[in-house]
Amino acid sequence: MADKPKQSRPKARLAKGFRDIEADELRGLKRMLATIAEVCELYGFEPTEQPLIEYTDALGKFLPDQDRPGEGVFSFQDDDDQWLSLRYDLTAPLARYVAENYDRLPKPYRSYRHGWVFRNEKPGPGRYRQFMQFDADTVGTASPAADAEVCMMAADTLERLGIERGQYVMKVSSRKLLDGFQETRNIPASSRLTWLRALDKLPRLGKTGVEELLGPGRKDESGDFTKGAGLSSRQIEDSISFATAARLNLDFVKGSRVGEEGLRELEEMQNLFRAAGYGEDCIIIDPSVVRGLEYYTGPVFEAELLIETRNEEGQLLRFGSVGGGGRYDDLVSRFRGELIPATGFSIGVSRLYSALHHLGKLTSSVARGPVVVLVLDRANIAGYQAMVSELRNAAIPAELYLGTSGLKAQMKYADKRGASLAVIEGAEERSRGEVQIKDLAAGAEAAETIASREAWRDARPAQFSVSRTGLVEAVKRWREQNRA
Amino acid sequence: MADKPKQSRPKARLAKGFRDIEADELRGLKRMLATIAEVCELYGFEPTEQPLIEYTDALGKFLPDQDRPGEGVFSFQDDDDQWLSLRYDLTAPLARYVAENYDRLPKPYRSYRHGWVFRNEKPGPGRYRQFMQFDADTVGTASPAADAEVCMMAADTLERLGIERGQYVMKVSSRKLLDGFQETRNIPASSRLTWLRALDKLPRLGKTGVEELLGPGRKDESGDFTKGAGLSSRQIEDSISFATAARLNLDFVKGSRVGEEGLRELEEMQNLFRAAGYGEDCIIIDPSVVRGLEYYTGPVFEAELLIETRNEEGQLLRFGSVGGGGRYDDLVSRFRGELIPATGFSIGVSRLYSALHHLGKLTSSVARGPVVVLVLDRANIAGYQAMVSELRNAAIPAELYLGTSGLKAQMKYADKRGASLAVIEGAEERSRGEVQIKDLAAGAEAAETIASREAWRDARPAQFSVSRTGLVEAVKRWREQNRA
Repeated sequence: MADKPKQSRPKARLAKGFRDIEADELRGLKRMLATIAEVCELYGFEPTEQPLIEYTDALGKFLPDQDRPGEGVFSFQDDDDQWLSLRYDLTAPLARYVAENYDRLPKPYRSYRHGWVFRNEKPGPGRYRQFMQFDADTVGTASPAADAEVCMMAADTLERLGIERGQYVMKVSSRKLLDGFQETRNIPASSRLTWLRALDKLPRLGKTGVEELLGPGRKDESGDFTKGAGLSSRQIEDSISFATAARLNLDFVKGSRVGEEGLRELEEMQNLFRAAGYGEDCIIIDPSVVRGLEYYTGPVFEAELLIETRNEEGQLLRFGSVGGGGRYDDLVSRFRGELIPATGFSIGVSRLYSALHHLGKLTSSVARGPVVVLVLDRANIAGYQAMVSELRNAAIPAELYLGTSGLKAQMKYADKRGASLAVIEGAEERSRGEVQIKDLAAGAEAAETIASREAWRDARPAQFSVSRTGLVEAVKRWREQNRA
Repeated sequence: MADKPKQSRPKARLAKGFRDIEADELRGLKRMLATIAEVCELYGFEPTEQPLIEYTDALGKFLPDQDRPGEGVFSFQDDDDQWLSLRYDLTAPLARYVAENYDRLPKPYRSYRHGWVFRNEKPGPGRYRQFMQFDADTVGTASPAADAEVCMMAADTLERLGIERGQYVMKVSSRKLLDGFQETRNIPASSRLTWLRALDKLPRLGKTGVEELLGPGRKDESGDFTKGAGLSSRQIEDSISFATAARLNLDFVKGSRVGEEGLRELEEMQNLFRAAGYGEDCIIIDPSVVRGLEYYTGPVFEAELLIETRNEEGQLLRFGSVGGGGRYDDLVSRFRGELIPATGFSIGVSRLYSALHHLGKLTSSVARGPVVVLVLDRANIAGYQAMVSELRNAAIPAELYLGTSGLKAQMKYADKRGASLAVIEGAEERSRGEVQIKDLAAGAEAAETIASREAWRDARPAQFSVSRTGLVEAVKRWREQNRA
C-alpha cells in the first residue's frame, strides 16, 4: 500500500440503489424460498433457471409504466455489437427458454424459479434496482384450470409460510372482462393503456384521483401533471362502478364475445376453486384487479395480505400485495408464430420476506451461536485449534479466536458473535489438565443481578471447570440441557 | 399476434456464452450448496451477500491474465455518468462490503456466500460468461491460523460431499516463498507477472512449455506467440526446480527476509493441520502452487481431486482443481489506508458439481415423479381437480393433465414427466365409484416381457382398481411399498 499515492484510494460504497444482505435475512430468505419450492414440487412444477443476461430483443419491452423503449432496463453492447440486457423479470427469459426448447419439453410445461432481476430506475426508500422474484408458470395450455392451479398454489404457499386462511386473499379477474367493457362502452383503443393504468391505481389514489386520470388528467402533490384518458363522464362513471363492483356483473360485458368468454372462464375457475376446497374466505373474483403489465391476455390475479401488525415504534404495518400474475398468451407465441398460451404467478420475495419477518413467522431455530475457544497463549495455538476441531467433529459449531487482542476483547468478540459458550485455557488450567467453560447468556443475566465486583468474583456465575479430555462431552451435555 | 408483421418476430436464442440450467442440475446444485453452507456454519462463518453490480472503481482490476484495464468485465455507465460493473468474482465485492462496514462487524470477521459472477470473455466449450462461485473469507487477522482454517474447511467440505480422504489433496504454498525466490535469484520486478503466470501453467504446459515462457517466449499450437519473461538459463532452471520440488527447500529463499517469513508461516500452518488431524494424506505443502491472481500476498491454496472415473463412452475423466484461494492483505486495506489483512477460499461451483455428478455423489433421493391425474372427460374437470387436491393435501406430488390431447398423448406426457402413477377415471369407472391406478414403471417393465397385444390386454399389468374414496389411501400404500 505504501507505494501507492493516497489520492488513488477508492471509496468503499455500495452502488446507488443496491444493498448488501446480512446473516439473519439470508437465513430467513433461505427458509422461505425452500418452503415455496416445496409447494411447487408438490404441484408437479420442476425447477429451471435462465441466465441473468439476455439479448435485448429476446426480452422485449414489457415493463409497466415505461413508455420510452429501453427505459428501465440495464443494457450494454456486446463485442459483436448485439445489445444485451439484464433481465427485468423472470417471465420474459422463461418465454425465451420455452420457445427455444419447446419441442423437447413436456407439454404443458410446469416450472418454477427464483432469482435476481434488475430495474434501471430511480431508487427510493425500500425501492432497489436489484430485487428477487419467485415465479411459477405453466406454458402450453389455454385451460382456465392452469390459471386456477397457480392461484391455488399461491394460496397454499402463503398458508405453508404461516399466513392462515382469512389473513390473506387471492383476488382474481380477467383482462377479457376489461376488453369486453372497453368494447361495450366504446373506449377507444388509443386510450386503452392510460385507462388500464388509471384503474390499476384505484387502491392507491382512490376514486377522485382515478376519475381525474380517466378524464382530463391529474396533477399530483409534487405538481407533476399526468395526461388523462379523456373519457366522457358516463364512461368514467361506468369504469369506476365496474372496477369497484363487489361481484361479477354480466351487464358490463353483455354482447361482447370476448367479455362473455372472460366471464365463462372465471366461472370455470370458480368451480375448480370450490371443488378443491378453496372458498370465498381465500380466493375471490374481484373485477378491481387490473395489474400494471401490458402483456396479460386473460385471467389476472393478485395475492394480498389482510393481516396487520405493529412495529417496535407502535406504527401499524399493512403489507398489501405480495405477488400476482396472470395469463400471457403472446409472450412465447411471439417467438414462434404459433399460439403457445401461458400463465404464471410471481412472488415479490423481498415484500413477502418483510411481511413474514414483521409478523414473526421466520424466527430462527438455528440462531444458537458458535462455541468460541479463546487464545490466552499464542504459543499454544495448535492446542486450542485441536479443541476447536474436536468440537466441530462432534457437529458443534466452533471457532478459534483469530485476532491478537487480550482476554477482555476476546470476550467482547464472543458476545458480538452471539456465542453460546467460551472455552478458556490458561497456563494454570493447562497444568491441571483442565479447561474453563463460560456460559455467556447466563453470565450476562447474572451481571444484571450481582451487585459488586467482589461478589461476582466469588460467585463466578455460569462458569465451570471440566477436564480437558472431557471438553466435548461437557459442551454436548450443556447444549442438550439448554435446548429451547 | 396477427396484427404484427412477420419480420418483427424475434429469434428465441440464448445470448452467446450463457446457458439455461434444468431440473436435475438445479436439484443437485441445491443439495451441494446446502452441504457447503453447513460446513461453513460449523466453522462459525456467517452468510452475507453483496449485490451483483458495483461501482467499477470499487471492484478494482484484479482479473487473471487481463492486461488491458476494463477487459474481462461487463461495464456500463449510470445516468449520473458513474461506471458500474457486473462483479467478476465474490472477493472484490466482499472487500468493499467489509471496508464499508468495518467498524460494526465482529473482528476478525468470518463470512461465506455464493452467487453468480460474470466474465466478459470469449466463451468456449464448458466456458461460460456467467458462472457460480462459493466463497468463505476471514477478514481482519494476519494469523496463519486463519489461512489454515479455510484450508481445513475446504477439506471438510469435500469429505462431507462424499470425496474421501486420499481422493483429493489440498496443496498449500505461499507467495512469500515466490517473493523470496525472486529476491535471491534476482528476477527483475518487471518480469514478475510473466514469471508467475508461466509457473502457474506448469501442470498444463509441462516443463518444456514453461521453460519457453520463462525464456524468450512460446508459440502455441494455433501459432500465437506469447512473449516470455526473458530470464537466464540458470534462473529458468532454478525456477523449475523450485516449482517442482517435492517439499520445502530452505535453500531457495535463504537470506530473504520475506522468503523466510513465508517458510515460518507455512510451518505454523503445518503444525495446526497436524494438531487438528489433517495429515499428509490430505493437506500438503507444495511449492508448485502459484495461482493466477495477482492480488495474493501470503499463503495460497488449491484443492485438487485425485479420484478419476470413466464417462458413458469409457473415456477417463480427471477433474483437477475444484477451488483455491489465498491471503489478500491489500484488497480491504486499499479502501481504508490501514492494514486489514484477509484470507479466503473459493469453490468453482460448476466444476465441483460436474465432478460430483460424474462420480455419482449427487444421485437424487427425491426423483420420484408426480402422480398424474388424466382428464378423460373435460366436463368433469372439477372432479379430477378434487382428486389432485386430495393427493396434494396428503403431501403427495400430483398434477392434473392440463392439455387438450387424448388418452395416448396423456400417457406419453406422464412418462415424460417421470410420473410414478397415473390415475384414470372414465365414465364407466365413475358410474361404479371407482378409479384406475396405473403403475408406470412396472408397466414399462411388463411391456418388455409381454409379447402379444392380446396377452397384454388380458393381463393389464401394473394397473389396479380402487374405490374413488380410497384413492389417497391406495396411493399412499403404493408409495410405501415401492420406496427404494
